[in-house]
Amino acid sequence: VKPSTTYHIEPQTGAGLALNRGQFLRIIDPEGEQVADLMAFNRLDTTERLSSGRSLDYNGTIFLTKGHALYTNRSSPMFTIVEDTAGRHGFLFEPCSREMFRLQYEYDGVHPNCLDNLTKSLAPFDIQEHMITTPFNVFLNVEIRPDGTLAIHPPLTGPGDHITLRAEMDLAVGVTACAAGLCNNYRCTAINVEVFDK
Amino acid sequence: VKPSTTYHIEPQTGAGLALNRGQFLRIIDPEGEQVADLMAFNRLDTTERLSSGRSLDYNGTIFLTKGHALYTNRSSPMFTIVEDTAGRHGFLFEPCSREMFRLQYEYDGVHPNCLDNLTKSLAPFDIQEHMITTPFNVFLNVEIRPDGTLAIHPPLTGPGDHITLRAEMDLAVGVTACAAGLCNNYRCTAINVEVFDK
Repeated sequence: VKPSTTYHIEPQTGAGLALNRGQFLRIIDPEGEQVADLMAFNRLDTTERLSSGRSLDYNGTIFLTKGHALYTNRSSPMFTIVEDTAGRHGFLFEPCSREMFRLQYEYDGVHPNCLDNLTKSLAPFDIQEHMITTPFNVFLNVEIRPDGTLAIHPPLTGPGDHITLRAEMDLAVGVTACAAGLCNNYRCTAINVEVFDK
Repeated sequence: VKPSTTYHIEPQTGAGLALNRGQFLRIIDPEGEQVADLMAFNRLDTTERLSSGRSLDYNGTIFLTKGHALYTNRSSPMFTIVEDTAGRHGFLFEPCSREMFRLQYEYDGVHPNCLDNLTKSLAPFDIQEHMITTPFNVFLNVEIRPDGTLAIHPPLTGPGDHITLRAEMDLAVGVTACAAGLCNNYRCTAINVEVFDK
């Protein structure tokens, strides 16, 4: 496996990239305990987007890992997870946003956030903020207790843990290094991304 | 409490309605064991929509009931649940669709489905199919097992059980009587809706 393009995503920022059908996307946590949000659109028709709802339904589980497909709102496979050394990801939450930091942390002003970073990263593909829905919360360690309540714990990742997805259509992709302390054990670090053909 | 407008939603169909801030929406299961999908948009700016991701995050639970708010993608409260005689609803799945029936049931042709019904119901508000995301799956009885796998069971509702939501903004609303056998104990029945001022 020879990486053809690599991206280094600085802490609390994002990157946008085009991915062709059949190419692989590897998302790497270089230091450990860092979450990445992954949002994607059919590059040829951006009204077709990643769908948490269909992916959870068709896989019959909240926790996606190797062998599972991620589906679009039109029920087409968008990605297949072909490798996963982390083993735990979330797919429930919209990206952290300015308003989230205001509501949940009473943070005044503009805190760095995944929604702004995805919006900026996807703008070259004519994707606007409101088109972004629940991304795949890569490496997010969410617990669902028997009564349905939710808790976020530090990611299970150590340095170098990664997940690899095969693109099942031509995609516009946004990836972030998550900006919310709570999700990343209160230390926001970088994310590396590799795109390769096989 | 005096109903001002009532809607009878025939089995496997939907209805669209305008709801003003401060008005109440009551969704009633007249026969029992029937699911309804509820999707809504800010009527003055339809790029603001119901958000499962933000609602689960801000309430800290998968299972919303009386006292919880449903949020938009911009983190504004859209509805507050003020009454709930059912006690169990889902908020994980996109509406059942033609493609879902093809994928999961190998159904050829056009099975009645909530996505088509929501799309038709919301069209008068200039809302298109691709703008519809995960609706509030009213009365859906979804189980999340400790390992994260999901199972759908018959709704807990008996005849007359209902949920009442107060609108926190001016809304365009779509409601369906769900068309998928599995969700409704294999008997698709009607849903009644009441809109009232107080």
